[in-house]
Amino acid sequence: MILNNLIFWFIPLASIVALLFAFIFFKQMMKESEGTDLMKQIAKHVRDGAMAYLTQQYKVVLIVFAVLCVFFMILAYGFGVQNGWVPGAFLTGGFFSGLAGFIGMKTATYASARTANAASRSLNSGLKVAFRAGAVMGLTVVGLGLLDISVWFIVLNIFYPATQAQNLVIITTTMLTFGMGASTQALFARVGGGIYTKAADVGADLVGKVEENIPEDDPRNPATIADNVGDVAGMGADLYESYCGSILATAALGASAFFTNPELQLKAVFAPMLIAAVGIILSIFGIFMVRTKEGANMKQLLGALGRGVNTSSILISVATLGILYLLGITNWLGLSFSVISGLVAGVIIGQSTEYYTSHSYKPTRRISESGETGPATVIISGIGLGMLSTAIPVLTIGVAIIMAYLCAINFDMANMMTAHNLSLGLYGIGIAAVGMLSTLGITLATDAYGPIADNAGGNAEMCHLDAEVRKRTDALDALGNTTAATGKGFAIGSAALTALALLASYIEEIKIGLVRIVETAGGVVKVGDELLNRAQIESATIVDFMNYYKINLMNPKVLVGVFIGSMMAFLFCGLTMNAVGRAAQSMVAEVRRQFREIKGIMTGEGTPDYARCVAISTKGAQREMLLPSILAILAPILTGLVFGVSGVMGLLVGGLGAGFVLAVFMANAGGAWDNAKKYVEEGNFGGKGSTVHKATVVGDTVGDPFKDTSGPSLNILIKLMSMVSIVMAGLTVAWSLF
Amino acid sequence: MILNNLIFWFIPLASIVALLFAFIFFKQMMKESEGTDLMKQIAKHVRDGAMAYLTQQYKVVLIVFAVLCVFFMILAYGFGVQNGWVPGAFLTGGFFSGLAGFIGMKTATYASARTANAASRSLNSGLKVAFRAGAVMGLTVVGLGLLDISVWFIVLNIFYPATQAQNLVIITTTMLTFGMGASTQALFARVGGGIYTKAADVGADLVGKVEENIPEDDPRNPATIADNVGDVAGMGADLYESYCGSILATAALGASAFFTNPELQLKAVFAPMLIAAVGIILSIFGIFMVRTKEGANMKQLLGALGRGVNTSSILISVATLGILYLLGITNWLGLSFSVISGLVAGVIIGQSTEYYTSHSYKPTRRISESGETGPATVIISGIGLGMLSTAIPVLTIGVAIIMAYLCAINFDMANMMTAHNLSLGLYGIGIAAVGMLSTLGITLATDAYGPIADNAGGNAEMCHLDAEVRKRTDALDALGNTTAATGKGFAIGSAALTALALLASYIEEIKIGLVRIVETAGGVVKVGDELLNRAQIESATIVDFMNYYKINLMNPKVLVGVFIGSMMAFLFCGLTMNAVGRAAQSMVAEVRRQFREIKGIMTGEGTPDYARCVAISTKGAQREMLLPSILAILAPILTGLVFGVSGVMGLLVGGLGAGFVLAVFMANAGGAWDNAKKYVEEGNFGGKGSTVHKATVVGDTVGDPFKDTSGPSLNILIKLMSMVSIVMAGLTVAWSLF
Repeated sequence: MILNNLIFWFIPLASIVALLFAFIFFKQMMKESEGTDLMKQIAKHVRDGAMAYLTQQYKVVLIVFAVLCVFFMILAYGFGVQNGWVPGAFLTGGFFSGLAGFIGMKTATYASARTANAASRSLNSGLKVAFRAGAVMGLTVVGLGLLDISVWFIVLNIFYPATQAQNLVIITTTMLTFGMGASTQALFARVGGGIYTKAADVGADLVGKVEENIPEDDPRNPATIADNVGDVAGMGADLYESYCGSILATAALGASAFFTNPELQLKAVFAPMLIAAVGIILSIFGIFMVRTKEGANMKQLLGALGRGVNTSSILISVATLGILYLLGITNWLGLSFSVISGLVAGVIIGQSTEYYTSHSYKPTRRISESGETGPATVIISGIGLGMLSTAIPVLTIGVAIIMAYLCAINFDMANMMTAHNLSLGLYGIGIAAVGMLSTLGITLATDAYGPIADNAGGNAEMCHLDAEVRKRTDALDALGNTTAATGKGFAIGSAALTALALLASYIEEIKIGLVRIVETAGGVVKVGDELLNRAQIESATIVDFMNYYKINLMNPKVLVGVFIGSMMAFLFCGLTMNAVGRAAQSMVAEVRRQFREIKGIMTGEGTPDYARCVAISTKGAQREMLLPSILAILAPILTGLVFGVSGVMGLLVGGLGAGFVLAVFMANAGGAWDNAKKYVEEGNFGGKGSTVHKATVVGDTVGDPFKDTSGPSLNILIKLMSMVSIVMAGLTVAWSLF
Repeated sequence: MILNNLIFWFIPLASIVALLFAFIFFKQMMKESEGTDLMKQIAKHVRDGAMAYLTQQYKVVLIVFAVLCVFFMILAYGFGVQNGWVPGAFLTGGFFSGLAGFIGMKTATYASARTANAASRSLNSGLKVAFRAGAVMGLTVVGLGLLDISVWFIVLNIFYPATQAQNLVIITTTMLTFGMGASTQALFARVGGGIYTKAADVGADLVGKVEENIPEDDPRNPATIADNVGDVAGMGADLYESYCGSILATAALGASAFFTNPELQLKAVFAPMLIAAVGIILSIFGIFMVRTKEGANMKQLLGALGRGVNTSSILISVATLGILYLLGITNWLGLSFSVISGLVAGVIIGQSTEYYTSHSYKPTRRISESGETGPATVIISGIGLGMLSTAIPVLTIGVAIIMAYLCAINFDMANMMTAHNLSLGLYGIGIAAVGMLSTLGITLATDAYGPIADNAGGNAEMCHLDAEVRKRTDALDALGNTTAATGKGFAIGSAALTALALLASYIEEIKIGLVRIVETAGGVVKVGDELLNRAQIESATIVDFMNYYKINLMNPKVLVGVFIGSMMAFLFCGLTMNAVGRAAQSMVAEVRRQFREIKGIMTGEGTPDYARCVAISTKGAQREMLLPSILAILAPILTGLVFGVSGVMGLLVGGLGAGFVLAVFMANAGGAWDNAKKYVEEGNFGGKGSTVHKATVVGDTVGDPFKDTSGPSLNILIKLMSMVSIVMAGLTVAWSLF
């Protein structure tokens, strides 16, 4: 039936269109010249560095995946606590997430010199090359994501025909394992990539800027090549995971929310995929809208980018109304407004991010000002600002959650928490996340072009291009920071909404696990304090499970779970912060050694050993990324084995609450420190080289791991813990201690 | 009946004994000489500064209390959503909390010069004076606390004879309002005091140490007097609040857990008070054990202090067994082990605090080492360490919660969450907190003597006493840091347990509020999605209310509450961090002005204008403490009005989870930075004046507001939000939007 369904085929079609355009943009970009021989040479250094890192990174990840896969096989075939598709789905999720990152990284390293070269023609040319290269990444991520989802859907549909309501639940929950593979690889990519680039960045700054007084991106600095690799692979893997996660979680919710009506159920499963598919087409449309006349100024460029993103967002809102109406989903109007509340929330969070981190506004300028009393007050005021900046995003996401829920249930407030309304409301929250990410094709393009522009600047600096060119690449970089704020708003907001949706999927998976137990053992099974037979379990709703397992706020197991979850967010950040600190220290030692031992570096007569710095960053990243990542996988498994279902729910909610706030705090504090330094460099409070500048450089250095390692990894941590819990649900119900 | 009960009278008797010994120790301390004229003069400056601050502080607090009191009167007499005792109870709680802080501060300012003078005789004499002065504070806090509880119990017993089960619930929940008064004043004291001293401390360091290169506590530094005032009042008010809060919360839990058996109920209410009363006697016993022979070395002194604290703790464990057995409480054995799990958890958290913050161990030394690559890596590694250090306390408190609960229900795991077992288990958690704080008389003595020894060092430095004397006061200070770690473990652990107990009290108060509504309106009232009559409400258990209000982890109102609660912890810290930053900047401007305008300060010919710096710190504290404190009071009220009971429960749990972890992070990071600097000052990594030293001074300065303003205030914030929710429960059930 599905394969005869014309609507369904639109989904893989859109994904292929996305990949096609990604290929076209890639070819267009490659046609550009890389500039002078020196520029080509520097670009090759950076590319080799990136590949050296990625090769090593993927080797380690491969081993971890092999181990986890065997573990899942044992659980599936040895103990029967999972279905046999789990190991395969897990592997492909990881593979495609890695592939998305790889393509993004490859494109970025090809694009940097080309952007610098184009920027020597005009600002507009530079923008076009960098933005189209970013679009390659954006479209690859959404294209691969939707393609994988379609393929898995087709394959599973053969074995579990989607004509049966129960099968659709099995299909969608099995596909979540695919999400777990993507999350696992994304966490490794973000943590590894974050440690890699920030160790190089911090190391390069500490010796170069502070000790030797040479500018950023100076080719005399041995760490500068490693610094210029940039963490594009992490970003790609991260957003691939977010994108697939939100669609899969919502599809799973749809399968359970409309369980009693198989026809509607299939439509509810299709809806998030269709919104994503239409979003792809609208993103491509938006990408083509980003063009200005030659000689455009900054404001016009910003306008051009903003126009592209905003048009896509507004069109997707309208399109959602159409999609849900045409699909014939009951309450199509309410659900469309759920999507719109998600989109509006994303925009508000983005605006608030910009307010708190851009040096056009007071908060960041106040950090620059506090540099007058030294680095300590820069750190104090940056931490203060970061913490304050959590208020608006949290309140916004709170309102969005309530609105998405209430719209989905047609404001039936008197029956807000009935089993039916709960499923429907949660589906509304999930689809709001899908709406937020539906235009990822273009928002990720504006996000990914940031590091490309940044590294184009590095290339220009190292090749001694005109000051004018460097100024243009700086302008492109600044432009990217502004649009990236919006991208961050959508990424972080959708992570919170998706994590909520995954809570419901967890309970569904617990139900499947319980059914599997009574199937084999027969009779009744203990569910919390009750003994239930198969029929009772199958007819139980999410609300029933809340009662059976006493997943309420007076249950000590829930409360201990909340404590552990909150702690996990901090522990994870502590590990990654220390990892960057340690790796940076090895980098500093190496850079100091090279300055001491290689003669003539400072005069330009000797060549620094760039490769050695790349190797140190790579080694540091591999060594340090394992512990935090494995901890993130083990925590929900162990909590489940000791404290059972209620403990895991507490863990996930505690991790979500503290993790979301901590992520906003770290991202914004880091961003504000970066721009506070830039504000001083623009000539305020004494300008470059002043004591205020030195004080703000300390803030920027501290902010590097905040905003590029620990902060963004938290988003993935939150969802990975949920995904692991879902995949391990069978284990928890079978073996938990309490 | 109560007033004929001999056992009851032991409670006020113990409190009077505590106050008596506090008075004796005070007189003993005052007999010591304050030393030379210069020492007296400096001491007077500090005392005047402290009184100037306290007078101003209490004026502002008085206004806030007057406003809140009128607000409560309107609610109580105008709307009838509370009983008429609330405004009075609220006021006395605030008054006695303030009084405890005042006496502590007064004693500390009298004791500093006397300690310095005694230290010039011998280390042992210095210890004795400082420790006995600390004991004045310790015994005043527990004496006043238990006295207030007794008096209120007697008064309320006249109007609501405790012979009726329902009356005992009313008495104990009304007395919680007294706890809210104490919490409110404690928050103001901690925040105001923290801003006051840290603005002075940071300001003094930034100009003195960094710009003018003069040592700490140099009399030429205008901010040094303000810096030496120390935040003893905040500490006193804070622990007064913790002490009363844990006893009152447990008493309230006892009244509801044993509701069906009035005789046992009264005993369960008495039990926490009796444990506290016996704890007072054992604390006094422990204080007398702290004595060494003349000429004792550091290790022997530490042994003496440790012996006093440990003996009291072990004795209280044994005594608890006796008290609960003699009271004839069913399951006295299990409950005793609940108390013991609390005590053991306190010790483990203390040990972990010491490990992470003392420079005898690797983590802090690694921060010192990271100073070799500058201030940025000091900050990164300090934040990393602080975040990692949250793991052990959280896991410990998690185990303690589960153990206290399971012991209290005799490990009846199969029926873990029945209504009866839930009440009993929560009572176990509450009484574990009481056990932790029962020896507060002596643990607070070891805590409060820290600032006394620190300021004695300041006095010695300013009066140019022998280097030997300064070395001794430094030794006393270091000793205090070690014992204070244990004190912190008990304070933070008991806060988490008390907050859990208060969750149950909140539900009890909701029940009372609902009964009040049906009493006046008659018929039925809406409880969540159900309509209930009076009998149904009165017979409903905590578990029932979880179901009525759907206080489970899939309820979007609960989840939004968790988000807001987590955010509140960060927002509150952000506000206080910024407050210290801003106040410190005014202080820096003033100190720079004085160095510039007052001639001869550096040569010692001109006298700095100390009073002006005191005034600036005072003004900064008043201006900055209002917003965060008022926010803490408003957040639960507003959340209740919008999201109702389930939203408030989410808020409290989210605030507890994130707040507890954030508090441990900030306290430990701050402590570690402080000691990393001290480790360098002891001659490691280049010693005083080296670049590593300068880098670690930056860490220490950032750590000041972490460990002395934001971190410790979070403990109070968590409990104050619970207390406000409890007192405002009537308002929430009557007016909530959802």
